[in-house]
Amino acid sequence: MPFTVIGELLNTTRPAVRDAVRARDEGYVRQQAIAQQDAGADYLDLNAGAGVRTETADLLWLVDTIQPVVSVPLCIDSPDTKVLEAAFGRLERPPMVNSITLEKKRYERMRDLLRGKPCQVVALCMDDTGMPSSVDDICRRADALATGLVAVGFDPATIWIDPLVGPVSTRTENGMLAMEAVAGIKKNIPGVKTVCGLSNISFGLPARRVINRFFLPLMMNHGLDGALLDPLDPHLLAARKTTELLLGNDAYCLGFMDSVAEGRMGV
Amino acid sequence: MPFTVIGELLNTTRPAVRDAVRARDEGYVRQQAIAQQDAGADYLDLNAGAGVRTETADLLWLVDTIQPVVSVPLCIDSPDTKVLEAAFGRLERPPMVNSITLEKKRYERMRDLLRGKPCQVVALCMDDTGMPSSVDDICRRADALATGLVAVGFDPATIWIDPLVGPVSTRTENGMLAMEAVAGIKKNIPGVKTVCGLSNISFGLPARRVINRFFLPLMMNHGLDGALLDPLDPHLLAARKTTELLLGNDAYCLGFMDSVAEGRMGV
Repeated sequence: MPFTVIGELLNTTRPAVRDAVRARDEGYVRQQAIAQQDAGADYLDLNAGAGVRTETADLLWLVDTIQPVVSVPLCIDSPDTKVLEAAFGRLERPPMVNSITLEKKRYERMRDLLRGKPCQVVALCMDDTGMPSSVDDICRRADALATGLVAVGFDPATIWIDPLVGPVSTRTENGMLAMEAVAGIKKNIPGVKTVCGLSNISFGLPARRVINRFFLPLMMNHGLDGALLDPLDPHLLAARKTTELLLGNDAYCLGFMDSVAEGRMGV
Repeated sequence: MPFTVIGELLNTTRPAVRDAVRARDEGYVRQQAIAQQDAGADYLDLNAGAGVRTETADLLWLVDTIQPVVSVPLCIDSPDTKVLEAAFGRLERPPMVNSITLEKKRYERMRDLLRGKPCQVVALCMDDTGMPSSVDDICRRADALATGLVAVGFDPATIWIDPLVGPVSTRTENGMLAMEAVAGIKKNIPGVKTVCGLSNISFGLPARRVINRFFLPLMMNHGLDGALLDPLDPHLLAARKTTELLLGNDAYCLGFMDSVAEGRMGV
């Protein structure tokens, strides 16, 4: 199973994207979408959450602007079921939905919205007590999320569990916790996928891109199936292609050698 | 236990080093030695094996030239016990010896030479049938090497087992084999260390440094204690420092942040 890349760049917390969305600058957001697809993104995350009152309008504009110019599916990134419901009305291809959690109100609304819809769903191991703090805790939450989604019709292979681990700057063990959580989820809940926002691990530290790029091989080795990341980072592409090679998932080294030949990898 | 770096640059298979050794260019080899030490090398490997008839004279010159200008111990790298015995006559600090194998003739001579000597020893999982091809095979060989060395007085903590895995270009599974071998050795033979020549994995492929740098986190995660590598490669330094951070071995992120502040890391 090749690693799944969810392109993270179309997010209004990035100032350039916020400005482009405000200005309804089709050229900029389409360029960012196409560049991510060309660099290997399997999904394009769309997050308009920075504009609190304008989220629905902004997200629908993003969907309408980007959908016609790419062939990959979109990942609709909002905690608000109203925003998601509006987006579903416009989508031409089954999306990924980012995300459901175990927070009681959000969980029930989101589950009811998703029931019967053909989509992939990201499920965060967050509940009303906050972030999880142990592998056992993460696995319990993951199991509750998967059980609930399977009960409303989801195939386990369409459920992407995010263990939601905090940065290594706040707790020395958070790197190992993330790895062990992914391995635990894969072992305990057959068939589900695992995913994370790759850059959360490096929050609060300098040289974040360096941390992210070496975190990826470690997480892939523990069974991570996909990540929200920057597909345009050449060193991150090198990390992914090289790790697939080293984990034995690149017969005859062809994927790696193609990437070297294309000249996109950071060397 | 911090990861051990054995600086690999003073090897006469590198043309610049071969020329410097032939010309008895003290300035060049001393600069290479000091630069590796300054970049964090814990041992400096000295290999004069490219000059078949001159190996002893070349190696002794290297020892005499470098020993006075560095404080770290040397790693004497030769399959020839005569060369090693001559080197022992000059060494002022207990060295690392690289290497003993299970090849019958070499094994007996090397074991007899090492008996009672205060040193660290690299033990390669090579026997008269060649390179190993499975984790079980590697663990059997590692056990034979460790047992033999302990019998002549070595503390397990001074024995560095190299599983001696081939490049991923010759066999797709070689990356995983290396990782599983290191984990197997650490599990089955309490107290011994594991080591490898990091760049063997990338032989025969383009962009070798990229492969080496992402192999390091994977191997460290499986328990690799040290490696022969290029201490001057800034991306490899980044790999090592970041992996120590992510594996939970860098309290308060101080080692990582110091490396960022020093500006030596590839970013």
